[in-house]
Amino acid sequence: MKHVMNSQLSFLNCANTCMLLASSPVFRRHHLLIRSLGVGVEGAIHHHHHHTYSSTNMQDLNSVEVDAESVIRAITPAFDLSKHKGQSGNIAVIGGCREYTGAPYFAAISALKIGADLSHVFCTKDAAPVIKSYSPELIVHPILEESYSVREEDKKIISSKVLAEVDKWIERFDCLVIGPGLGRDPFLLDCVSEIMRHARQSNIPIVIDGDGLFLVTNNLDLVSGYALAVLTPNFNEYKRLVQKVLSSEVNDQDATQQLLSLAKQIGGVTILKKGKSDLISDGETVKSVSIYGSPRRCGGQGDILSGSVAVFLSWARQLTADPNSNLSSKNPTVLGCIAGSAILRKAASLAFSNKKRSTVTGDIIECLGKSVEDVCPAA
Amino acid sequence: MKHVMNSQLSFLNCANTCMLLASSPVFRRHHLLIRSLGVGVEGAIHHHHHHTYSSTNMQDLNSVEVDAESVIRAITPAFDLSKHKGQSGNIAVIGGCREYTGAPYFAAISALKIGADLSHVFCTKDAAPVIKSYSPELIVHPILEESYSVREEDKKIISSKVLAEVDKWIERFDCLVIGPGLGRDPFLLDCVSEIMRHARQSNIPIVIDGDGLFLVTNNLDLVSGYALAVLTPNFNEYKRLVQKVLSSEVNDQDATQQLLSLAKQIGGVTILKKGKSDLISDGETVKSVSIYGSPRRCGGQGDILSGSVAVFLSWARQLTADPNSNLSSKNPTVLGCIAGSAILRKAASLAFSNKKRSTVTGDIIECLGKSVEDVCPAA
Repeated sequence: MKHVMNSQLSFLNCANTCMLLASSPVFRRHHLLIRSLGVGVEGAIHHHHHHTYSSTNMQDLNSVEVDAESVIRAITPAFDLSKHKGQSGNIAVIGGCREYTGAPYFAAISALKIGADLSHVFCTKDAAPVIKSYSPELIVHPILEESYSVREEDKKIISSKVLAEVDKWIERFDCLVIGPGLGRDPFLLDCVSEIMRHARQSNIPIVIDGDGLFLVTNNLDLVSGYALAVLTPNFNEYKRLVQKVLSSEVNDQDATQQLLSLAKQIGGVTILKKGKSDLISDGETVKSVSIYGSPRRCGGQGDILSGSVAVFLSWARQLTADPNSNLSSKNPTVLGCIAGSAILRKAASLAFSNKKRSTVTGDIIECLGKSVEDVCPAA
Repeated sequence: MKHVMNSQLSFLNCANTCMLLASSPVFRRHHLLIRSLGVGVEGAIHHHHHHTYSSTNMQDLNSVEVDAESVIRAITPAFDLSKHKGQSGNIAVIGGCREYTGAPYFAAISALKIGADLSHVFCTKDAAPVIKSYSPELIVHPILEESYSVREEDKKIISSKVLAEVDKWIERFDCLVIGPGLGRDPFLLDCVSEIMRHARQSNIPIVIDGDGLFLVTNNLDLVSGYALAVLTPNFNEYKRLVQKVLSSEVNDQDATQQLLSLAKQIGGVTILKKGKSDLISDGETVKSVSIYGSPRRCGGQGDILSGSVAVFLSWARQLTADPNSNLSSKNPTVLGCIAGSAILRKAASLAFSNKKRSTVTGDIIECLGKSVEDVCPAA
């Protein structure tokens, strides 16, 4: 197994010797990394091999608990006054229908609070005014349609109109989040399937959650073999995925191996299995993030995660795309999942320590900024 | 009369001897109970028998003032990291029409602030965008219809569509709150009657307030004999209920006996009679909650109460359903009413001490978290 940390270290050594760069923002970032990692780096990687646990509640630990904070520091871009709007992330959430408006809002606003420059929502006409009313910070496109508002004979033309609207924008996005509050209307899901195909043709990463997972579980070809796809199933969504893909039941005793098989079977997509510990696999390795979060299980936390993973994934991809970067051998989707998981957990923990049992998702979103800042100070 | 406290004590003694469990969350909860009850337990139960009061403003006290805080501690679930979203409560409010949107919002958001994981609202199409815009935390279903938007000949088909929408969800709910901001449109109330019948068939508890009480008072068969129904009448709603069921006027001199008769007459539903002291009866016993609240009578406090009772009732039902629990002989609807009444009073008192005459319902909702935390710390 490769460890993210190994590449971090060579990365650091390199930075350390390039003293001519001492005043550049890149150097300052690396310098921060050196200070924060200190001498305890090796100790920060915990190997757990073939432990046996009697309790079925415990996740097996054949995975490697990563030093998620180091990952966050490595992929979060340094500020640079010469950058333009959009260069630190332009995210789009595809979701929001007559029934659901909170979920796409949570995902989209979380992307901004993590540090993206622009955050869009593509939703139905009914959902748009409501989502807009939650926040003037979001760009909300009322373009999706549900069956109830479309006559059978108009479906083809409306479907192509929806696609044309999305196509106007799609090349500008660094990542799409597909699913929060999408609903399960068949016509709408057909349009979203097309959007996913277009995103894939344009090599745009996609994070799939909620009803997007319902769609993908029943149409695996939409993501199969697409290395820039991330699935973020919760307990029940994971169960359906395992049943469909592996034709078996969830195995808690050997969760790591099962997740690895599942990701491999879907052609190397990255899966973030949410749970007491989050497990992340791209079919090659399995990482785990177990930072203490919150025991509160209020709805909407998954939406924060999908928006956060989208931003970190975009940032990681900028670095891994650079052949000179020491992260170039790393999978940006895995790095994005590690960072997103850890930041949500930290924010949830901060919110819970303040609001306790009454913590709601909005309280956690308010803590995203501090949880990023604590790990990776802006200046 | 049985006292909730008695079962609490045996419950505590048991926990106290099971030292092997000392590190479990359940033990920690029990341990907290022991500490909080201390030696003053017996003193916490006040018996008042056959006092006579000259003032008609004073409630008679043939009821037993309960130690509501101990009830709250006994029924509030301990946190457990292995739990999934929904396991600590999934509540639905049926209410919200063209005229009223605040009431269902207050009830639904209160459920989340008490500690439920998910809170839904089923309302009319006009009310939905407004209720959604109050908070992205709620899941708002725009499915109810009022007469003005339905042609006579379409009523049957629309009614069955409404029912089908609710039926998709109903089994997942731990409790329904029926009535906040429901309005009195006859067609809408017919649909809601059907929803109540379905809830009853599925053994889902229902808390009935506001216009739901108007409906039920005129159609007693909807709740009669259903032990999982809770009615939460205010002064006027109680008056109409007494007139209809007992064919008499409200008797302040013997409020306890009259409430007992009323609950018995409706076949053992639980009634929470709101007043200076809240009186609670299931036709077997009468409990009273007189914790100091607030003298402010701003509209909407009843909605907080209904949402809070729904959550506590759901939690109490999980415990009372367990034959090994020391609460197994208790009525979960009574426990839920006691806890909801006490928490609203505490939150109202906190809000009033800060906002005084300008206190509004939203201020009280903001204090729900602290009022639960003060009684039953989350960790």
